[in-house]
Amino acid sequence: MIAILKNGTTEEQTAHLVSWLKHMNLDVHVSKGAEMTVLGLIGDTSRVDMELLSSLEIVSSVKRVSEPFKQANRKFHPNDSIIQVGNVKIGGGYFAMIAGPCSVESEEQIIEVAQAVKESGANILRGGAFKPRTSPYAFQGMKEAGIQLLLKAKEATGLPIVTEIMNISALDLFADVDIIQVGARNMQNFDLLKELGKTNKPILLKRGLANTLQELLMSAEYIMSEGNENVILCERGIRTFETYTRNTLDLSAVSVLHELSHLPVVVDPSHATGKSRLVPPMAMAAAAAGADGIMVEVHNNPSCALCDGAQSLTPAQFDELNHRVQKIREAIV
Amino acid sequence: MIAILKNGTTEEQTAHLVSWLKHMNLDVHVSKGAEMTVLGLIGDTSRVDMELLSSLEIVSSVKRVSEPFKQANRKFHPNDSIIQVGNVKIGGGYFAMIAGPCSVESEEQIIEVAQAVKESGANILRGGAFKPRTSPYAFQGMKEAGIQLLLKAKEATGLPIVTEIMNISALDLFADVDIIQVGARNMQNFDLLKELGKTNKPILLKRGLANTLQELLMSAEYIMSEGNENVILCERGIRTFETYTRNTLDLSAVSVLHELSHLPVVVDPSHATGKSRLVPPMAMAAAAAGADGIMVEVHNNPSCALCDGAQSLTPAQFDELNHRVQKIREAIV
Amino acid sequence: MIAILKNGTTEEQTAHLVSWLKHMNLDVHVSKGAEMTVLGLIGDTSRVDMELLSSLEIVSSVKRVSEPFKQANRKFHPNDSIIQVGNVKIGGGYFAMIAGPCSVESEEQIIEVAQAVKESGANILRGGAFKPRTSPYAFQGMKEAGIQLLLKAKEATGLPIVTEIMNISALDLFADVDIIQVGARNMQNFDLLKELGKTNKPILLKRGLANTLQELLMSAEYIMSEGNENVILCERGIRTFETYTRNTLDLSAVSVLHELSHLPVVVDPSHATGKSRLVPPMAMAAAAAGADGIMVEVHNNPSCALCDGAQSLTPAQFDELNHRVQKIREAIV
Amino acid sequence: MIAILKNGTTEEQTAHLVSWLKHMNLDVHVSKGAEMTVLGLIGDTSRVDMELLSSLEIVSSVKRVSEPFKQANRKFHPNDSIIQVGNVKIGGGYFAMIAGPCSVESEEQIIEVAQAVKESGANILRGGAFKPRTSPYAFQGMKEAGIQLLLKAKEATGLPIVTEIMNISALDLFADVDIIQVGARNMQNFDLLKELGKTNKPILLKRGLANTLQELLMSAEYIMSEGNENVILCERGIRTFETYTRNTLDLSAVSVLHELSHLPVVVDPSHATGKSRLVPPMAMAAAAAGADGIMVEVHNNPSCALCDGAQSLTPAQFDELNHRVQKIREAIV
Repeated sequence: MIAILKNGTTEEQTAHLVSWLKHMNLDVHVSKGAEMTVLGLIGDTSRVDMELLSSLEIVSSVKRVSEPFKQANRKFHPNDSIIQVGNVKIGGGYFAMIAGPCSVESEEQIIEVAQAVKESGANILRGGAFKPRTSPYAFQGMKEAGIQLLLKAKEATGLPIVTEIMNISALDLFADVDIIQVGARNMQNFDLLKELGKTNKPILLKRGLANTLQELLMSAEYIMSEGNENVILCERGIRTFETYTRNTLDLSAVSVLHELSHLPVVVDPSHATGKSRLVPPMAMAAAAAGADGIMVEVHNNPSCALCDGAQSLTPAQFDELNHRVQKIREAIV
Repeated sequence: MIAILKNGTTEEQTAHLVSWLKHMNLDVHVSKGAEMTVLGLIGDTSRVDMELLSSLEIVSSVKRVSEPFKQANRKFHPNDSIIQVGNVKIGGGYFAMIAGPCSVESEEQIIEVAQAVKESGANILRGGAFKPRTSPYAFQGMKEAGIQLLLKAKEATGLPIVTEIMNISALDLFADVDIIQVGARNMQNFDLLKELGKTNKPILLKRGLANTLQELLMSAEYIMSEGNENVILCERGIRTFETYTRNTLDLSAVSVLHELSHLPVVVDPSHATGKSRLVPPMAMAAAAAGADGIMVEVHNNPSCALCDGAQSLTPAQFDELNHRVQKIREAIV
Repeated sequence: MIAILKNGTTEEQTAHLVSWLKHMNLDVHVSKGAEMTVLGLIGDTSRVDMELLSSLEIVSSVKRVSEPFKQANRKFHPNDSIIQVGNVKIGGGYFAMIAGPCSVESEEQIIEVAQAVKESGANILRGGAFKPRTSPYAFQGMKEAGIQLLLKAKEATGLPIVTEIMNISALDLFADVDIIQVGARNMQNFDLLKELGKTNKPILLKRGLANTLQELLMSAEYIMSEGNENVILCERGIRTFETYTRNTLDLSAVSVLHELSHLPVVVDPSHATGKSRLVPPMAMAAAAAGADGIMVEVHNNPSCALCDGAQSLTPAQFDELNHRVQKIREAIV
Repeated sequence: MIAILKNGTTEEQTAHLVSWLKHMNLDVHVSKGAEMTVLGLIGDTSRVDMELLSSLEIVSSVKRVSEPFKQANRKFHPNDSIIQVGNVKIGGGYFAMIAGPCSVESEEQIIEVAQAVKESGANILRGGAFKPRTSPYAFQGMKEAGIQLLLKAKEATGLPIVTEIMNISALDLFADVDIIQVGARNMQNFDLLKELGKTNKPILLKRGLANTLQELLMSAEYIMSEGNENVILCERGIRTFETYTRNTLDLSAVSVLHELSHLPVVVDPSHATGKSRLVPPMAMAAAAAGADGIMVEVHNNPSCALCDGAQSLTPAQFDELNHRVQKIREAIV
């Protein structure tokens, strides 16, 4: 970390600041120039409060040289992490094809969709049991019963399942769930992240609507710093001024996250675009960008879904998409 | 709610959709024109899933005519709500001057600041005990001990206190807290909102970093629909591309929220700007825009705060600010 | 266009508005429901000022049913437009591989790069002569001399050239330029667009930093409405809160623009990301998303470029990228 | 300017870079630390291309210590600039109350509005003659005839006038215009800015929809670097995800611009909010934030305006607003 002091800072003031920094167990390297003094802070600067330091009257600006995340950082873990979920691997060349309905609605529905997507090449089943909805009056999911139905679909097809948790008090219900999803709105629900860090379940962590990639990695770090290294990052679109799509899918996130971190990165084009006809091109683009997996909504009857049908593919569309994604994956090797 | 059907929709398809809508207990008024058919949906449309309806192949677009929030809606509650907190009233002409440190650090600190801000005209004390921090390695607040110190400061000064909750499991610790704050990152932590709706505590609900005003009101609705009508809305800046300020304070939110809702609206210029020298002009602007209160960070020693010192005023600066805010409030009557 | 009138609007007020609308040569279809009155406006609504209509006291809201652009609209021109540039075609299955340096710097440089990119499969040469720079003190390009050098490179390689215009007074200098580029900052320089609409040159129109896709199409409409139908749309990233990349490349724009318009869409990953190592994955993703072309910066000596070297590929990197893009294009057919 | 070199940079590489920087007439101060080497660049760094420097393989990051703008910079011009327009002064305690219709429509209209706003305290008349419109089919203003009518209104009332230029070729028509406005969409039309810099007319420069405050100041610098120091900055809202208001008015811009620059800052709440009922509170907030002026749309018959009526006040509303703004200005002294 570098702190640049303002012109006119006295020797005494500089000494006072250096002494304060050394109390935080940092080595400080002072470099006096004609127009400014630069302090180089060496040691564990992840605990230094940059905003506080910047606020001091004698400080002109502060700049981090190293990233504030450690366990998620590729520098300290150069090889790709591979997350094992049942028989399925994600990351390091292994591709997750996650598909299923937005919401679990009935036993018939979830088993039918699970069988269809498995046949078309999906290796993980998704389905919402607890649904975060903007309105308290909207359908909030089948909750516990939904998880039970997902487990039946898992039994029927052998597919591992991923579903969203909204509240740590529901954790017991997720005992047999293979991957626990943290939704975009909970990406900075730090207490939830910490509790999930105490489990050993793979966690699919979605990027928040207005969060930077560094913040996403800091949220992964919350989970990892508690001992759980099984984190899968998920890009699902950010909020911009564009209104034609629900959100703006940021595919450069795939490369940037791979550069900064060893964790696998999957892409959810269904929530990002909100329109089923945009899902196939964005899924293919994600594969071409090097994503470690795709997560798409598939429904057996899109026109009657209880929620979000607008963004779901039919099984036939998913089948075709899967073929194209595989061809692209072969093309980029 | 209006649904516009595409050109070429058959009579049979229209009848099918109308019948489906009537099953949701809606009256449907069909209007056939030369180029389109318009369905007017009448009844409780707050439960209708607009995205699902939009997704149907025969539907061109869907438009809400009435807002999806009810209890927070000024239409059904024309008079300003006045929230009572101890001896203090907020809203309907009553102004909350909320001040205190970002984090509670020690008994001496919090009592000293509480006394100073009381003397300068604050009527509510703020202070963070549980601190949401981007990094798991940053100071996370004094937690339970912090709340105990806030209660001592309340005892010493008589000021009601407001502090942030991050997890519903900590609710018992807030028994003597006067106003429970929900932070920006938890604005859509719906399970937390629902549980707070079951209490009768005033809730200070902060707008999320990338949330619309309608979403803020829907989150208020989550609390109110469970029975707790004591919601105070708080504008604290949204995230934009501008980097000079931490966030962009959206002061038009004050007028818009007053137009749409009867709930009081307070403004937090400290978090919005992140720079103490920008706090006074933005606090004065908030008062001029008609805010029902201001929430500012005040510290007895800004240069040594454990966190966020960059955005805190000194007691002397707060004293001057309070005088100016009062003068502006007199000017706009 | 649909206008929804407020509850309580009188018969007289409605009649007054209907008469005003009919004066604009619109047919008006009035539909009275229990809770609202809906006016359906039929005819050439592209000239109706939605904001004005919305502002009338009796109007609750206004909604366009048809898009405000016509000549750029796929509805009225279902087949893909194919733009001919010398021997090169763009759109309708024809792919533009546009490459070259950010700025033209010398005859040696531009000819060397042109030969290298041609050998690696580029079919159009790009190069900046007039450079829009945030600072008046930064290098503003070689201007007229730069265009002369581009023309020499065209002569040497046979590649058609594309370069940016900043001011209509420079149009004469572009007589032998094959494609005139309008940069992001000039996307809504309407006077420039109108003048370019009076030429018959292909125009490469870049999306503005904060413009919606509909606004981009309206700017294309400015050019087309003056008679020039040779417009190529270009997605080059939008401004968001993310700071790791220079801008956020919005690849869903490719599919959305293809859906709404018949014009070809190319993608510029160099300006979008600002980092050369992110260019290949984003170029491949663009190809997988169905783009009609890619525009990338290539430099023979990235470490010494006068500007923007950070985002330029070496010729060897471009060569490899071209192979991968072709493989992806084969995979998605 | 500070450049931080990567770990592992060799002595030779460092020497090579230092020599290159010295060729740009910079002094370089090298500071070697245990974990990094820091170069301090001293001299005229405004011409250094930060992106190029950052792109070099041995450079970890680059940070400006001083702002890239000079003539607009308060550091080199500590006192507020006061811009003289006829008998009216703006800045340094002098307040501009600019009012008038969105578009000039007729002699009767503009003179009637001019007289009304003058009587209510306006000291400058605004009115659009050249109108930038998203659609080529929308009303584009009365153009030259509109300017002639504005001049008649100036003659009738003595009010100086401000109106927008869209194209440098129209400059002759502005010979008797008092203040030339550059609209948000042309904020980075650098050729236009340079030409305006060669005049001595006061220029009202509006912030672009997605531009940072530093970029606004760099655009002011384009004008000033050509010799014209009469620049008035204007905040008029930025584009965000919020849809209730047309744009999001960023009032912290007033304080930030005053901190960074000596130029006067006016606020346009009409375009920012797009709703006349939000104009008075935002105008008052702007005054409380310390703005040097307000620019509001006033129309004698809002329900029949040819454009933008939604955001215009009636003369009576403007009269009341002016009283309130004056009271606030007295309160903040």
